[in-house]
Amino acid sequence: MRSGGAGVSASSRTDAAALDRHDPLLPFRDRFLLPPGIRYFDGNSLGALAKGVAERVHEVIAREWGETLIGGWNAGWIDLPRRVATRLAPFLGVAPEDVAIADATTVNLFKLAGAVLAGRPARERILAPAGNFPSDLYALRGLADTFDAELATVPAADLAQAVDARTALVTLSHVDFRTGELFDLEALAQAAHAHGALLLADLSHSVGAVPLALDDWGVDLAVGCGYKFLGGGPGAPAFVYARRALADELLPPLRGWLGHADPFAFEPEWRPAAGVERFVCGTPPILSLAALDAALAAWEGIDLAVTRSWSLSLGDLFVALAGRELGSRGFTVASPREGAHRGAQVSLRHAEGFALVRALAARGVVGDFRPPDVLRFGLHPLYLCHADVAELVRLLAEIHDSGAHREPAFARAAPVP
Amino acid sequence: MRSGGAGVSASSRTDAAALDRHDPLLPFRDRFLLPPGIRYFDGNSLGALAKGVAERVHEVIAREWGETLIGGWNAGWIDLPRRVATRLAPFLGVAPEDVAIADATTVNLFKLAGAVLAGRPARERILAPAGNFPSDLYALRGLADTFDAELATVPAADLAQAVDARTALVTLSHVDFRTGELFDLEALAQAAHAHGALLLADLSHSVGAVPLALDDWGVDLAVGCGYKFLGGGPGAPAFVYARRALADELLPPLRGWLGHADPFAFEPEWRPAAGVERFVCGTPPILSLAALDAALAAWEGIDLAVTRSWSLSLGDLFVALAGRELGSRGFTVASPREGAHRGAQVSLRHAEGFALVRALAARGVVGDFRPPDVLRFGLHPLYLCHADVAELVRLLAEIHDSGAHREPAFARAAPVP
Repeated sequence: MRSGGAGVSASSRTDAAALDRHDPLLPFRDRFLLPPGIRYFDGNSLGALAKGVAERVHEVIAREWGETLIGGWNAGWIDLPRRVATRLAPFLGVAPEDVAIADATTVNLFKLAGAVLAGRPARERILAPAGNFPSDLYALRGLADTFDAELATVPAADLAQAVDARTALVTLSHVDFRTGELFDLEALAQAAHAHGALLLADLSHSVGAVPLALDDWGVDLAVGCGYKFLGGGPGAPAFVYARRALADELLPPLRGWLGHADPFAFEPEWRPAAGVERFVCGTPPILSLAALDAALAAWEGIDLAVTRSWSLSLGDLFVALAGRELGSRGFTVASPREGAHRGAQVSLRHAEGFALVRALAARGVVGDFRPPDVLRFGLHPLYLCHADVAELVRLLAEIHDSGAHREPAFARAAPVP
Repeated sequence: MRSGGAGVSASSRTDAAALDRHDPLLPFRDRFLLPPGIRYFDGNSLGALAKGVAERVHEVIAREWGETLIGGWNAGWIDLPRRVATRLAPFLGVAPEDVAIADATTVNLFKLAGAVLAGRPARERILAPAGNFPSDLYALRGLADTFDAELATVPAADLAQAVDARTALVTLSHVDFRTGELFDLEALAQAAHAHGALLLADLSHSVGAVPLALDDWGVDLAVGCGYKFLGGGPGAPAFVYARRALADELLPPLRGWLGHADPFAFEPEWRPAAGVERFVCGTPPILSLAALDAALAAWEGIDLAVTRSWSLSLGDLFVALAGRELGSRGFTVASPREGAHRGAQVSLRHAEGFALVRALAARGVVGDFRPPDVLRFGLHPLYLCHADVAELVRLLAEIHDSGAHREPAFARAAPVP
């Protein structure tokens, strides 16, 4: 696509090689440490390790913790969440001071949505897509119970028209975790605002995958995790965004000392910090946070428009090849065919999906599986080229035809997060 | 004390040396990496780095994350919180399955206290000491606002008698963060239960410092952090405990996917996991968690009765020496004199406390300061001997008399967590 290539018409290994020939991301690929022989289609679930991360965390442990002990807090740890927020802001398209790093995504979603319900008692409804990320639905249901509100789930396509005067909050995952469908946050923000409601987006599956412009789009509130496309490491800290004017109005139900206007005064009463910082709660996990910081540093100089263009091209090729090679083998494409409606992920459906994903992994091609029948393939632009996509499709066909996935070793076991 | 020593009558450097002569913790001291020349009296705020922690985290990053990528979840990460909980259980005096590792202390306190308020709407009162750890009070106040309940603060000494039929929950920090006063959880549990209320203890300042027997004491609920005496590293994950029968009754207001009975089924509705596991929420920060795991491993074979005895002996010496050497210099002992009422911490008060703590640190003796005038000295039994305590008192007297703490370099700046 981006290099005037064949786009959706690219449907052979030769075309894939041609598309890879002028790779604008080549200068950056060696920043990411992928094991030899692995084609990694799961960067949408756990980003790969970037160079510098292990060294940075070791420095934090051995020198900062080991040698300066408690002094580490004043020597940089206490400001580390703010520095990470500053690195993260361009991924979101927001001012650095409007995003904070804290806790886990679900906890942050709870804090934001709870603040909205608490502050707008006349509106008792939360709207979310029925297929929303389950952890978000669990948190929202818990909030609805707590605030005597209603959680209404509707098909994602009906979300905009379901907003009404009772709606406090419209909330959704920006990219559907199963299908990779990318929703239009700008249109949803307008639909929400037209009825006086607010929009809260979970960006876990889009941050680092799709250029975001929360500020321009009028998104009110957002959360997301640091460990998917961003590569912050397993369970990396999450983030929380609130539009400036709104942040100063909202009071989170869950309040902790690092969201206090003056945490070190140890005052008995909570006074909210200015802006989004009030949504910070407890002491941050510095080792995990340092890894996230170093991971974000590895993105320096990388143009998100270029990565998006590359992953769209990977996805277009995948969709085209899957249609041609896999349709007759019982696979269907579960993701939107049009790139504009797709995150950096293409999902297939197949009745034997679990075993097929396991058999692929045994051949060094790593995707993942989501019940009931979804094979997910993350198209992280910094880890993958078009030849990897062509090989993935070829292998899927080969495994399918040979029945290699029916080995007992690939039978159903516990899937991964 | 423990070795038939002089106890409170030990009040000289000679006595200190005598008390150190038969050190039952000597075989374990080299497990903790204290920088040369540092006497570390801040292990109550941030435990020192244990041997093996840096190596373990490096292994998790470089090999588990770097090489097995997403496979790390099935290869051990997903069970890591449970393994850490199992290591932690003996510190609490509970069965491993009744404690879980999750989030930050304040978040866990919110989940437990919120579950109690939600489950007992007829009781609208939370009781806490007025001087309780501020972050806990902030969370409780937020809950009181959310559930239209009352947070009543009383002097700690009046807590037991303030319980009444309206009280849902009695909650306190087991050890006062300023004074080091150790409260009697067994008596408080009885007082709470006598009126049908529950007891929730924050063990952040006692776990690893004092042998705990939550089960025997009848404590209903508890939270605490991993980074103080336990040495899990800056911002290490926290824990949550609930008495078995109670856990199965309580529904946290904040619900996430890892508290689901079957997280990987990705069901749209939350079904609580059995027992305390339902209080787990989001994906755990694996790097910080691995550090905590390795830190707890460094305690293996260490008898908590022996460490308690040693830190009491350190405290008794400190109180005796402070009374003799520092009373005339404007210092008062802010901690209980009797060991049975004291955690592993002795605090002094002095009008110039902040500068004195800074001047001490410049001489390699690290304590900390809490407003308005509290000099805190943690007596971590594995980092300190009686000679360190004698030297601390000697230096405080010397600095005070020389006025060395009045150097501009030691003037008030931002204190540390």
